[in-house]
Amino acid sequence: MTDSSALAQLSESLDRKGLDVAAIIDAIKRQRIETPSWGYADSGTRFKVFHQPGAARNVFEKLQDAACVHRFTGVADSMAIHVLWDFVDAKTDDVVSAAQRLGIRLGAVNPTLFERDEYKLGSLGNPRSVVREQALAHCLDSVEIMREIGSDRLSLWFADGTNYPGQDDLIGRKHRMAEGLKEIHDCLDDDMEMLLEYKFFEPAFYSTDVPDWGTAYILAKGCGPKAKVLVDLGHHPQGTNIEQIVALLTDEAMLGVFHFNSRKYADDDLAAGSMSPYELFLIFNELVAAAGGYGLYDAAYMIDQSHNVKPKVEAMIQSVMSIQQAYAKALCVNRPALREAQLAGEVVAAEEILKDAFETDVRPLLAATREEMDLAPDPLACYRASVYQQKVADERS
Amino acid sequence: MTDSSALAQLSESLDRKGLDVAAIIDAIKRQRIETPSWGYADSGTRFKVFHQPGAARNVFEKLQDAACVHRFTGVADSMAIHVLWDFVDAKTDDVVSAAQRLGIRLGAVNPTLFERDEYKLGSLGNPRSVVREQALAHCLDSVEIMREIGSDRLSLWFADGTNYPGQDDLIGRKHRMAEGLKEIHDCLDDDMEMLLEYKFFEPAFYSTDVPDWGTAYILAKGCGPKAKVLVDLGHHPQGTNIEQIVALLTDEAMLGVFHFNSRKYADDDLAAGSMSPYELFLIFNELVAAAGGYGLYDAAYMIDQSHNVKPKVEAMIQSVMSIQQAYAKALCVNRPALREAQLAGEVVAAEEILKDAFETDVRPLLAATREEMDLAPDPLACYRASVYQQKVADERS
Amino acid sequence: MTDSSALAQLSESLDRKGLDVAAIIDAIKRQRIETPSWGYADSGTRFKVFHQPGAARNVFEKLQDAACVHRFTGVADSMAIHVLWDFVDAKTDDVVSAAQRLGIRLGAVNPTLFERDEYKLGSLGNPRSVVREQALAHCLDSVEIMREIGSDRLSLWFADGTNYPGQDDLIGRKHRMAEGLKEIHDCLDDDMEMLLEYKFFEPAFYSTDVPDWGTAYILAKGCGPKAKVLVDLGHHPQGTNIEQIVALLTDEAMLGVFHFNSRKYADDDLAAGSMSPYELFLIFNELVAAAGGYGLYDAAYMIDQSHNVKPKVEAMIQSVMSIQQAYAKALCVNRPALREAQLAGEVVAAEEILKDAFETDVRPLLAATREEMDLAPDPLACYRASVYQQKVADERS
Amino acid sequence: MTDSSALAQLSESLDRKGLDVAAIIDAIKRQRIETPSWGYADSGTRFKVFHQPGAARNVFEKLQDAACVHRFTGVADSMAIHVLWDFVDAKTDDVVSAAQRLGIRLGAVNPTLFERDEYKLGSLGNPRSVVREQALAHCLDSVEIMREIGSDRLSLWFADGTNYPGQDDLIGRKHRMAEGLKEIHDCLDDDMEMLLEYKFFEPAFYSTDVPDWGTAYILAKGCGPKAKVLVDLGHHPQGTNIEQIVALLTDEAMLGVFHFNSRKYADDDLAAGSMSPYELFLIFNELVAAAGGYGLYDAAYMIDQSHNVKPKVEAMIQSVMSIQQAYAKALCVNRPALREAQLAGEVVAAEEILKDAFETDVRPLLAATREEMDLAPDPLACYRASVYQQKVADERS
Repeated sequence: MTDSSALAQLSESLDRKGLDVAAIIDAIKRQRIETPSWGYADSGTRFKVFHQPGAARNVFEKLQDAACVHRFTGVADSMAIHVLWDFVDAKTDDVVSAAQRLGIRLGAVNPTLFERDEYKLGSLGNPRSVVREQALAHCLDSVEIMREIGSDRLSLWFADGTNYPGQDDLIGRKHRMAEGLKEIHDCLDDDMEMLLEYKFFEPAFYSTDVPDWGTAYILAKGCGPKAKVLVDLGHHPQGTNIEQIVALLTDEAMLGVFHFNSRKYADDDLAAGSMSPYELFLIFNELVAAAGGYGLYDAAYMIDQSHNVKPKVEAMIQSVMSIQQAYAKALCVNRPALREAQLAGEVVAAEEILKDAFETDVRPLLAATREEMDLAPDPLACYRASVYQQKVADERS
Repeated sequence: MTDSSALAQLSESLDRKGLDVAAIIDAIKRQRIETPSWGYADSGTRFKVFHQPGAARNVFEKLQDAACVHRFTGVADSMAIHVLWDFVDAKTDDVVSAAQRLGIRLGAVNPTLFERDEYKLGSLGNPRSVVREQALAHCLDSVEIMREIGSDRLSLWFADGTNYPGQDDLIGRKHRMAEGLKEIHDCLDDDMEMLLEYKFFEPAFYSTDVPDWGTAYILAKGCGPKAKVLVDLGHHPQGTNIEQIVALLTDEAMLGVFHFNSRKYADDDLAAGSMSPYELFLIFNELVAAAGGYGLYDAAYMIDQSHNVKPKVEAMIQSVMSIQQAYAKALCVNRPALREAQLAGEVVAAEEILKDAFETDVRPLLAATREEMDLAPDPLACYRASVYQQKVADERS
Repeated sequence: MTDSSALAQLSESLDRKGLDVAAIIDAIKRQRIETPSWGYADSGTRFKVFHQPGAARNVFEKLQDAACVHRFTGVADSMAIHVLWDFVDAKTDDVVSAAQRLGIRLGAVNPTLFERDEYKLGSLGNPRSVVREQALAHCLDSVEIMREIGSDRLSLWFADGTNYPGQDDLIGRKHRMAEGLKEIHDCLDDDMEMLLEYKFFEPAFYSTDVPDWGTAYILAKGCGPKAKVLVDLGHHPQGTNIEQIVALLTDEAMLGVFHFNSRKYADDDLAAGSMSPYELFLIFNELVAAAGGYGLYDAAYMIDQSHNVKPKVEAMIQSVMSIQQAYAKALCVNRPALREAQLAGEVVAAEEILKDAFETDVRPLLAATREEMDLAPDPLACYRASVYQQKVADERS
Repeated sequence: MTDSSALAQLSESLDRKGLDVAAIIDAIKRQRIETPSWGYADSGTRFKVFHQPGAARNVFEKLQDAACVHRFTGVADSMAIHVLWDFVDAKTDDVVSAAQRLGIRLGAVNPTLFERDEYKLGSLGNPRSVVREQALAHCLDSVEIMREIGSDRLSLWFADGTNYPGQDDLIGRKHRMAEGLKEIHDCLDDDMEMLLEYKFFEPAFYSTDVPDWGTAYILAKGCGPKAKVLVDLGHHPQGTNIEQIVALLTDEAMLGVFHFNSRKYADDDLAAGSMSPYELFLIFNELVAAAGGYGLYDAAYMIDQSHNVKPKVEAMIQSVMSIQQAYAKALCVNRPALREAQLAGEVVAAEEILKDAFETDVRPLLAATREEMDLAPDPLACYRASVYQQKVADERS
């Protein structure tokens, strides 16, 4: 069969470079990628929210979709939740039961700190103390939900900032944010983590309270040991070397969570790896290097995407596969040779070692790994051949 | 009185530079700035639409607000309309009558080509002909509305584009767009203009069908003499020299309309001049130069802003005033001296002539002009002291 | 043997998609990539020009290096020249003879319009007519050199622009540039082409006289049929969709030349494909589509890179190979299937067709093609194993 | 006299806002702006270094020019030096004496860590230990020079980084950089400061070892109390809110030095305030706020510009004046009213308070201050009327 011969060939070629194919396959099997509940609901841009037939309408349908993605890919066994979007009409017990039935865990808990008129000038950074207290209370409620559903990650993203120079005191906002975060941190159980997300711009257009990794780092450090930084691939200025930020945060033991997505200009929420697969590979290259070569740096990894023109579940499966592909390629880097070329200052040779891994067609390897996991070798094709999309479109109309 | 002495001083200083103060005042009086109906309704980002007390709920309330801005500023005597937002529940006759009663004209007509599920993959650029025909029909309906309300400007912005490489054929999309535009153009009456807006990105995130002025220029040229380019200040890549594009389009006689707003990162829809007042001044400097020194290049000028954190009417008055200020400063440029310094290659001297105009505090001049127009010298303060905001908040709850 | 089995497998897989492997190999053989004389000489940034042992010191040594790149790659059979750098101490006859002996053609002729103190405020755009005339004379001299060396391409890049607002009249500069270009155009022989390069910024920091493809297009159109646009990959704002510009220019029959290189932030002059190999593939995808599927759009293709930290010849060979790789992948796109998915609005499926081609490891195909051309299958490894670098380092010290 | 009446009017208007005009004038008098020795020598871009008649050729001529700028402006009483550029042929004693004779102090000492072929792959971050030791030795020599010339600031900018993915180990480079910095730090005398400059890109094009304020902050913290961060206005990604970084660093007591200049796209080294005077004002607004309202945050302030098309001394005087202007406007902010509007969430009112200060024509105030300092009210005009430029052009030919 062609595929097995392709695999044999790939294995031989990896062998020749001194790589341990079994260890690579094992590492791929161990990777887990969380998907976001909000990735299964209708979404859009500020100009239009498009309705997709079969889009999930509540947390239970989102769990169904997440479970579907897991069924086809085998690595997406948890779903992040957004408190106000998912727990308004649902009891936590019911959600937990539904998840268990579907073979899915509940992952990161995201307080919803931007969907009320009160938050027009911010949540924890708001100039009015009454609004800050409301935001804080919602965060503490979210911690309570974590306990109820057995989640250990509180994921904090703030839409806070200002639209105009002078609108608010930049230092005042920093202090308010630091205070609020500290209070939340101190309410966490010992086995809980608080992840602070930064974002260069949007929806605040002049200043953002947590605009870059440096601010997130300082605020997290100020909170204590349970706080770490969350890196979202779409939240950097143009031209940023994201893999370098990732490397630095692993080196400082401050990288907590990863949000996968892709962008061409701003925070476009496109499918991971769709704009620059090489960049995604280079990021994984740092995460693999930080783990010593046959694994991934110990953090949480999740997709944070909203698909406006792609079918939701299909796009999520495609994204999981793109992420696996980038990871698999990073596992194929000949690290001893790389190190040697680097120390010798052999710029072309060192670069070619990375490019060689990137040019490798790892699809046979991934197909083989999936077969060992009792999965279809091509989850996307398999999903497209299934009736799932038609079924939910019928059920959820 | 202080203000008159400030004015006297300013006049003297302008005189010394050989500038004609009366001509400047006259030019300021003649400037007109259209405001957009959508700037008076609730708006927001993709994360949240904030409700403002008193925000206009229909085209009649929008007209009231536009008339209010005109009453305080004296230069905002027309309102642009967006077809689906403004004419769904309103008859054109009623709208025209309401506008007349309020002393306002109806300006640019904007077809609404993005707010239907059918447009998910585009309107005129859609791969499906049935959708393209629907979009075209809506544009032709819009031309009919123009006839009914007596507007001579059709303002075309397309959300069309793609989110992923391969999603569609880039050349195919260009041809479909060109065809559709040509059909619209040929349906216009002889005294009508068709304005084609370009935008670098959003809501399409990989490719935009009309991404830059060059594409708009080529498409407009392909249509015929009634088509021109629309420049929106928020629609350029970072680092773009917008004033140079403006100068080029005036030189090519292809600048049709101006959309005022401001951005720090993307299309942030902030108040004109709020991020870089110097840039706004430099743009006016080209528009004044193109008109020979005491006027403005013959195009339409409108505000295109959505205020999420500022009160709508207040922000619109503030924006009108910022635009007037930039224009007034551009009128204070000593052009013969500038030309001389430029030809002599005196870089510092030439730059200082622009900076001198920009550093000039033109507020006394604007105050005096407004008094001649029987307006309050400070429209923003006057509006804030009025009961308008309270009144509409009460009426429109 | 492993490689032949890899090739067999690849061929089979391409066959299954209905692709004609022989046509692909034939297309790869026909591709030609010009290298620049200045890529073989010492270069650097404004902070430091680094000396490399063996860097070419004159046009004859540059020809040796270019010939070396051709010897190893088989597709780099011409070298572009820069007039003042290459013909100051060398007679055109001698250069032509040397090139012929080395089996290399002389390609694009680049007037050197920025390396004199007179050009501080510009060349053709300079406010002083005496400087403009000097620049024009140099361009006409360059046309004469074209005749002497048998080149048919005049490649025009202008460092012209301004550093400060007000420094010069933007429209005045445009007119001067248009006039000068027209004069050059009209001096060209009928079989000659004039290529106009645009650049977003640098070395002019406030305005650049030819800042974007739109300006280049208008200026070229204004000259006449012998003028076309030159696209340099490093000369665009961040976030630009370059493949769309390429597609548009092919559709308008205005794409004349391509400058390959890569950048992360500005005009970094890095090796083609080194920052985003997917972007390079997407560009080739348009160029192949424009040629109907098994070839390349009819334009000139050259590398424009300055390697500061990589050895010059090694980097050039690596670049040629990266370009071939991107082209080969673009030849592997299943175009009928792509068209079908696009028309059906199948966004994921359409994207996956491009990704499938990109993920294909085309190195066995390129190796086979090279063997048919009597070349080493891996030119870079072969060059690194050769004594060339050591030899020129010894000879040129 | 007109100017005194302008001043009277301005004073009255500031009074009305509750501002203390005498305190403002006093603050302006106390401001000091260091100029860089390299700003007086010929400079250019990577394409061409332009020669200016009279450009300083050695450190003594640079001191003359710096003293000239000080003589006309009264606030530029120190000059920063760059070790290899200034002390190669000059003894420190002679330089100190010359400076004293001219009434100028020697300011920041900048080791020159990029102008040797050895530094091609970096200085402190170089993979080869022998190069790192050479760089370290040069830094320690620079500390010795500090002792000899009585400077207390060591200003560190590293051109270090990589041009290609894989070229070097990003974490390895971080560790090497941290080690080297720590060694330098521990050699400093107690009253010395070490300032670490960050830069987003250039001359390293793929990764820069100190790319952002966050990295500079972590590295400085790792060194100890004598290390702080240096903010250069031209070293940020497009769209960055620099005033927010400045505010954060003052709040963290980590802002050590400021480098004034301006850029439209990259690190363009243009005159401070020339691209966005409002941004410069907003930065000063934070520095004044951090100092309580009538002064400047306690840091060092210097110009770091290279003028390629403007005459060197003239441009430096112009820059000093632009900086003073931005500072003076920041002193005119009605801070109690601003705070009140901010806390009340009055976005328009708060913004208008900043805009009111910015729109104020502070030139009469600066003129009056200069007269109190026995200076010409318009230093630029006065310099242009002087014979200095002609004199040095004659002397230095």
